Amino acid sequence: MSDKMQRIVLASRPEAKPEPANFRLEDAPMPTPGKGEVLLRTIWLSLDPYMRGRMSAAKSYAKPVEIGETMTAQVVAEVIASQHDGFAVGDLVIAPIGWASHGISDGTMLEKITPGAAPLSAYLGVLGMPGTTAWVGLNDVGGAQPGETVVVSAATGAVGSLVGQLAKQKGMRVIGVAGGADKCAYAEKELGYDVCLDHRALDRKALTAAIAEAAPEGVHVYFENVGGKTLEAVLPNMRDFGRIAICGMIAWYSGAENAPPAPLVWSAILRQRLRVEGFIIFDRWNRRPDFLAEVAPLVKSGKIHYRETIAEGLENAPAAFMELLEGGNFGKQLVRVGPDPK
Amino acid sequence: MSDKMQRIVLASRPEAKPEPANFRLEDAPMPTPGKGEVLLRTIWLSLDPYMRGRMSAAKSYAKPVEIGETMTAQVVAEVIASQHDGFAVGDLVIAPIGWASHGISDGTMLEKITPGAAPLSAYLGVLGMPGTTAWVGLNDVGGAQPGETVVVSAATGAVGSLVGQLAKQKGMRVIGVAGGADKCAYAEKELGYDVCLDHRALDRKALTAAIAEAAPEGVHVYFENVGGKTLEAVLPNMRDFGRIAICGMIAWYSGAENAPPAPLVWSAILRQRLRVEGFIIFDRWNRRPDFLAEVAPLVKSGKIHYRETIAEGLENAPAAFMELLEGGNFGKQLVRVGPDPK
Repeated sequence: MSDKMQRIVLASRPEAKPEPANFRLEDAPMPTPGKGEVLLRTIWLSLDPYMRGRMSAAKSYAKPVEIGETMTAQVVAEVIASQHDGFAVGDLVIAPIGWASHGISDGTMLEKITPGAAPLSAYLGVLGMPGTTAWVGLNDVGGAQPGETVVVSAATGAVGSLVGQLAKQKGMRVIGVAGGADKCAYAEKELGYDVCLDHRALDRKALTAAIAEAAPEGVHVYFENVGGKTLEAVLPNMRDFGRIAICGMIAWYSGAENAPPAPLVWSAILRQRLRVEGFIIFDRWNRRPDFLAEVAPLVKSGKIHYRETIAEGLENAPAAFMELLEGGNFGKQLVRVGPDPK
Repeated sequence: MSDKMQRIVLASRPEAKPEPANFRLEDAPMPTPGKGEVLLRTIWLSLDPYMRGRMSAAKSYAKPVEIGETMTAQVVAEVIASQHDGFAVGDLVIAPIGWASHGISDGTMLEKITPGAAPLSAYLGVLGMPGTTAWVGLNDVGGAQPGETVVVSAATGAVGSLVGQLAKQKGMRVIGVAGGADKCAYAEKELGYDVCLDHRALDRKALTAAIAEAAPEGVHVYFENVGGKTLEAVLPNMRDFGRIAICGMIAWYSGAENAPPAPLVWSAILRQRLRVEGFIIFDRWNRRPDFLAEVAPLVKSGKIHYRETIAEGLENAPAAFMELLEGGNFGKQLVRVGPDPK
């Protein structure tokens, strides 16, 4: 075993969009597990838009990453040394050890992976936090029902791509909004969206009209990942008593230029009697067993499609993350940090 | 009986704040009830902020008043001629006949008033649409619970003054926001608010700090009547998983100068996992019997306080309405259109 590990720390807080100088790759001594602890070796690192929020000092649902601290993340890891009765060397786990090659855990935040049930990387995407987010947001927060119409923004992202497929399996009319013709073709041909609209090719007015055409009965549920122009285009198409599940607002994470005034949103909620709810999957993690029971068999049987964008090597995580915020990824953004187990 | 009636019609649509020229007082021939109809004589006319919305052509939950059409409103009226089996001359009713001295009804939208149960004017306020709105918004939409903290904007208005009193009776901590020291003194001394904050004396920052001080555990429920600076001050004080019942947004009805950008609201909903719901009492009118069963005895026994601002004569309704939008009223705004029944 090497006597060194690598990690990426927050070097400074971004003003708007993150830049390379906001991150720093560091070497550190390889840690040793104490009694009741395990040492983990990272195989796959998950990059997600919510991490942009952790880079800011603003009050949020999770405390921000401090300057000099390792960037937070979920990883898939292998136990390579154990002083913990519940974990043996060779066990595979989902672990919140951050942007790091190795980490120590006392086991409390680890979730074991059943070997062979699905590809390891799926546990950070379609079967991981994004997948659980999709399922809970659509069903528990959005209250989606068969026969209804749903709009999904970031339709081919880690969360959106599963929302769309689960909604189709429920018997809903499913409209995606994504950035680029290739993403939209993928959404319609592989993910089964009834329609996918390219927000890069349509201005606000055209996007509004296109949603109206795609949703002749109006929109019952909007699964919100982006904010911005897409939100402005969806709002007037919401049916009375429609529901909006706010999962993210990637268009506004790094600033709010050209954002509409708050009364536009507030008056739509009032006039159309909408129910809008923000949610964070960590508050609803108790739903994970129900999610896995329903969705893991769908993944195993090939009924759920997913794509991954893979960056090679921990040192490339910052660039991959900056690209992710610009929509440069296609499906779940991962970093290959170490090899699969032997 | 006179052979003429009076009504006030929408002469033109306001650009921002309504002006006298937007209204026109007209004479019309006294109508005659046909078979199955009654002729009503207006005693009290109710003025409410939502009427500003009806003056605009924009899509809303109710269709706008057309140019030349009588302004809509609820009134308390006496049946003075009847060709309807269900109504006799002398019956008192709540009726949606608008800003008019008389009107015809086929009975479908009439609600009979039990004589003597409460003062007639109360059926347009604390026991009428505003009262029902307060009760439904606090309980059904806001999900208010004993021991929680609620903020009520427009705290001494027709709706707000009942929200505050009902919340106190429930055992909540109740914080009002109102415009002016006299309103705030009334809220604290007569309505029983724990604290009432004067938004005219406090800028956004000071109002935010004052709410934080008044709500040391944060705000569980915000009963939203105004939008604007008050909303901006309440949002950062909302507890995680707090609820906002949007009943109105009077500060933004006539324009949205200095309004914050939408992401401010959207990110608060996401980060604090708020549930925000707009509601219109007409969708929830089935709750009226439960409301009356609970609140009518409280009004009769004097446990619910209310104030009225009364304009004399139908011709003064436009001026009173314009004053209402500026917050010039104190409690429920009424117009005395005709004398009480003999």
